[in-house]
Amino acid sequence: MSFQLLKKDPYTQARLGRYATAHGSFETPVFMPVGTVGTVKAMRPDELKGLGAEIILGNTYHLYLRPGHLLIKELGGLHAFMNWPGPILTDSGGYQVFSLSQTCRLREDGVEFQSHLDGSKHLLTPELAIEIQEALGSDIMMVLDECLPYPSELSRAQSSMELTLRWAERCLLSRTGENSLFCIVQGGTFQGLRKECAERLVALDGKNPGKSFEGFALGGLSVGEPMPLAYEIAGNTTPYLPEQKPRYLMGVGMPEDIVTCIGLGIDMFDCVVPTRMARHGTMFTKFGRINIRGSEFAKDSGPLEEGCSCYTCQNFSRAYLRHLSLSKEILSAILNTIHNLHYFLNLLGQARRAIAEGNYAKFQKEFFQQIQSGEIGANQKSF
Amino acid sequence: MSFQLLKKDPYTQARLGRYATAHGSFETPVFMPVGTVGTVKAMRPDELKGLGAEIILGNTYHLYLRPGHLLIKELGGLHAFMNWPGPILTDSGGYQVFSLSQTCRLREDGVEFQSHLDGSKHLLTPELAIEIQEALGSDIMMVLDECLPYPSELSRAQSSMELTLRWAERCLLSRTGENSLFCIVQGGTFQGLRKECAERLVALDGKNPGKSFEGFALGGLSVGEPMPLAYEIAGNTTPYLPEQKPRYLMGVGMPEDIVTCIGLGIDMFDCVVPTRMARHGTMFTKFGRINIRGSEFAKDSGPLEEGCSCYTCQNFSRAYLRHLSLSKEILSAILNTIHNLHYFLNLLGQARRAIAEGNYAKFQKEFFQQIQSGEIGANQKSF
Repeated sequence: MSFQLLKKDPYTQARLGRYATAHGSFETPVFMPVGTVGTVKAMRPDELKGLGAEIILGNTYHLYLRPGHLLIKELGGLHAFMNWPGPILTDSGGYQVFSLSQTCRLREDGVEFQSHLDGSKHLLTPELAIEIQEALGSDIMMVLDECLPYPSELSRAQSSMELTLRWAERCLLSRTGENSLFCIVQGGTFQGLRKECAERLVALDGKNPGKSFEGFALGGLSVGEPMPLAYEIAGNTTPYLPEQKPRYLMGVGMPEDIVTCIGLGIDMFDCVVPTRMARHGTMFTKFGRINIRGSEFAKDSGPLEEGCSCYTCQNFSRAYLRHLSLSKEILSAILNTIHNLHYFLNLLGQARRAIAEGNYAKFQKEFFQQIQSGEIGANQKSF
Repeated sequence: MSFQLLKKDPYTQARLGRYATAHGSFETPVFMPVGTVGTVKAMRPDELKGLGAEIILGNTYHLYLRPGHLLIKELGGLHAFMNWPGPILTDSGGYQVFSLSQTCRLREDGVEFQSHLDGSKHLLTPELAIEIQEALGSDIMMVLDECLPYPSELSRAQSSMELTLRWAERCLLSRTGENSLFCIVQGGTFQGLRKECAERLVALDGKNPGKSFEGFALGGLSVGEPMPLAYEIAGNTTPYLPEQKPRYLMGVGMPEDIVTCIGLGIDMFDCVVPTRMARHGTMFTKFGRINIRGSEFAKDSGPLEEGCSCYTCQNFSRAYLRHLSLSKEILSAILNTIHNLHYFLNLLGQARRAIAEGNYAKFQKEFFQQIQSGEIGANQKSF
């Protein structure tokens, strides 16, 4: 597995790259649809492939609790289990432990939590996080980290960063297989801590022969802070990361966040936004967002997004999509997810082409102009 | 639109036919997947076509209440609205008025009811039932009838049948378009009434020049009575129906009901069973039914049904399907529906081939032998 930096944009920090895994390679910048419990919600894997998804994300916390990583391993790993032949990145489970479990208690050795499914007690250690991800057969594993809430005080952010660094090394040392492992830069909203964390992870990366990180993630962003602050931290942190390794901004985000952060040198993104919002009727278009349940679409025979080539836009009217969404039909989730994922994956494809042509700044500018000029209905919201 | 009787089985009453509509033709015996509110639940229309569905059913009651037949008409009719290019049969709405509405009151002119969605009051008359179905652009419309509960007394069944006959004539006389119209034989579980109703509908069929029924349905069966009684009534009624028109047994049924009733001379079937049961994990196989949520499938790497050629069986294990169903994932509804519809549509295809070969009795016998010999897991249920 390896990352190849193919091109750097002349006017921004945007980068074009390629990451090779045992399950094929993907181009960066990339958006990874989220497949929480072994399925990207409402999507057949062949549909997902047809939409141009090259890598998807799986959630360690969910899969560990149900059906269990050992069961998945016995059945040939997550790729075989869910019939997804391409690369899979798995998170460490830490974020969900903090956000979903009934109770959780941070200890030096790991984090104790109770399952949100049945209340059963578990201890997630850095070593277990790696063991689970290796059992799943993840192509890219993430270290266990503590994801700080926003806002957090400096002293809290400092000690959390120290713990994250200790856990990162334990993850690094417990690796046994060929799976890639990414570390995570933490440090809250404190630029000094972010810089220190990045530098110490880089040092750790070279410390143990044969044990290195294949990529660097930025964690603890997009957790409630103003997005301009997240942009600032991301942009000020990437200069401390090795140029020849990919940078992954975890859990981000909205299209405008992605377009902005590509320009700050980020290579990888994931977010539940396109799939989750689709199920609630919020649709992304190049002119901005609409909620398809709005009454202004009741008799609208036009497609969701004029000019869009996705199956949904090619075959169905806004009026029909509104009807399906209001009727809570499963087909609503399917068709809306197809469109939103097409939008995100297509946006990333356009971004990659722009970088390849050395035109990313122009692409960014036009993207925001189009969003801001959008007039596609009474409830249209520009970003 | 017309029905062509292509072949009669030598040893049973089974018939092979072809029905031509403005949206293409379909072969009988046929199973019609149910698309209640303008979608066969969890299915893309191209998926449905790929499964071999030739005609689907739409529910007048649901579409009348939401989004409304006039809106659908304005948007080009139900075929365009839901992007289903093939034939559509619509029911009259009567059955759902009796089973779903909050309150309903039978009157000579129609049936008063309150919407299950918002409590609004409506009066469904025979004329309105036809108006709605014509607005939807239905290929095959059904007359408004009263669907008796089981059991009902003779006097109640008699007066209900008289009302159904009066309404059938009003439907016949209110037709304005080229859409086909099927009448419905009622009469409860009383063979004398069934015969009388059939004969009087046949008489009505020839009474008004240029106003005829294109098919005959059997209604009020499979509403709680023992299925052998339903078989008996169906088998004793078909001899009174015109041979050159199709016979439709409404709301039936389970695979064994369909295989039995084809042998009694029935040509058309519809039922929510394959789609609804799929969403609850009950799967049809040639060896019988299983519930995929059973713990015996937790580590089962085999396909749902050995030898099945559907997308689900070709690509996923029982263990994965169990996991999806327990996790209430949308993909569970999708994959399970694909398999169950494939099972039903494939079964009907086999039945048609058997009739074409004059072998329907043998087909029936082998079908029941295989079901009864089935051993596919601890919770396997033979039919």
